Amino acid sequence: MIHNTLHNIKVVLASASPRRKQIFELLGINALIVPANVSEPITTEKPYIQVKAHALNKALAIAKFMDPATLVVGSDTIVAIDNQVLGKPATRRQATEHLQQLSGRTHNVYSAICIIYNNRRLVDYARTSVTFATLSESDIKNYLDTKEPFDKAGAYGVQGYGSQFIEKINGCYFNVMGFPVRLFHDMINEMFGESS
Amino acid sequence: MIHNTLHNIKVVLASASPRRKQIFELLGINALIVPANVSEPITTEKPYIQVKAHALNKALAIAKFMDPATLVVGSDTIVAIDNQVLGKPATRRQATEHLQQLSGRTHNVYSAICIIYNNRRLVDYARTSVTFATLSESDIKNYLDTKEPFDKAGAYGVQGYGSQFIEKINGCYFNVMGFPVRLFHDMINEMFGESS
Repeated sequence: MIHNTLHNIKVVLASASPRRKQIFELLGINALIVPANVSEPITTEKPYIQVKAHALNKALAIAKFMDPATLVVGSDTIVAIDNQVLGKPATRRQATEHLQQLSGRTHNVYSAICIIYNNRRLVDYARTSVTFATLSESDIKNYLDTKEPFDKAGAYGVQGYGSQFIEKINGCYFNVMGFPVRLFHDMINEMFGESS
Repeated sequence: MIHNTLHNIKVVLASASPRRKQIFELLGINALIVPANVSEPITTEKPYIQVKAHALNKALAIAKFMDPATLVVGSDTIVAIDNQVLGKPATRRQATEHLQQLSGRTHNVYSAICIIYNNRRLVDYARTSVTFATLSESDIKNYLDTKEPFDKAGAYGVQGYGSQFIEKINGCYFNVMGFPVRLFHDMINEMFGESS
């Protein structure tokens, strides 16, 4: 298990996300939390390329301060539909547009992880599809009133009020929370040479 | 949204599960928590029949003490593979057997909800499939050492160390946590006559 493999390794999580911090705690990983203030511009690149670049940039920004024998973990999550990345909505109007676009359809959530240890880097990502129920105008209005959409990529939070809009997901569900745990498990084993 | 519909309704959650309490908080539902001490024997009935009976029994056990205009919510979750329900393991040996049975395969998690309000009852369930990675002997040994499997149906916890064994899920992911939120949303709308 991950906490056994990392037992004698110093770990830094390059993220400000409370959700990722919580997942590390659930996994029994004792990590120093160091938010990486890296801007994450939305471009016209494919979503998986963007998300991998963000995770790499976060990990690199922190790793340059660290002892090379410290494991640095960077991660990023984006929401995409029709190959277009939906960012955090700046206004009520933009949040409404995002939610109208997601309503009654299936979109993709991409989360990437980058780990750096002794100058060796691994970067990978996972994709999960998420199917939204059809939202009425009052669903959207009431959801905006909760304020939850405004700091969330794609204008919804899977762990809060937004959960009631989600009909099903297909793939890693920790991915949708922002950190694909099984992928991380496999990357740690690759980096530290465990067989399973 | 659920919290709007239930705004002026007294709600009782008939469950001792910290996870369900947490989901109610995430949904902004202010509920009185009243654990129902109902035994949940494993029978040879189909899993969906068993889980619905458990949810109904929990809700009934609490509803008989309540004002009829109080909404009572009962819920139960079971893990099944090959149409056999896996209970909470009593011993290390039994936990090992459960995990060997789940290893490298897809099983089903069933969660049922029963709501009772003004003597009207609704009972329904959701099923989610969960695909486990292949576990080595040392994976299982190390996982047992965390003690996590012992109070969990099926001998794993989706929200803890067990998360790293899960390759993917298909369906409602709150179901796997123990409370299918979208189903609850739809049942509340049916009970209280909202259109969406």
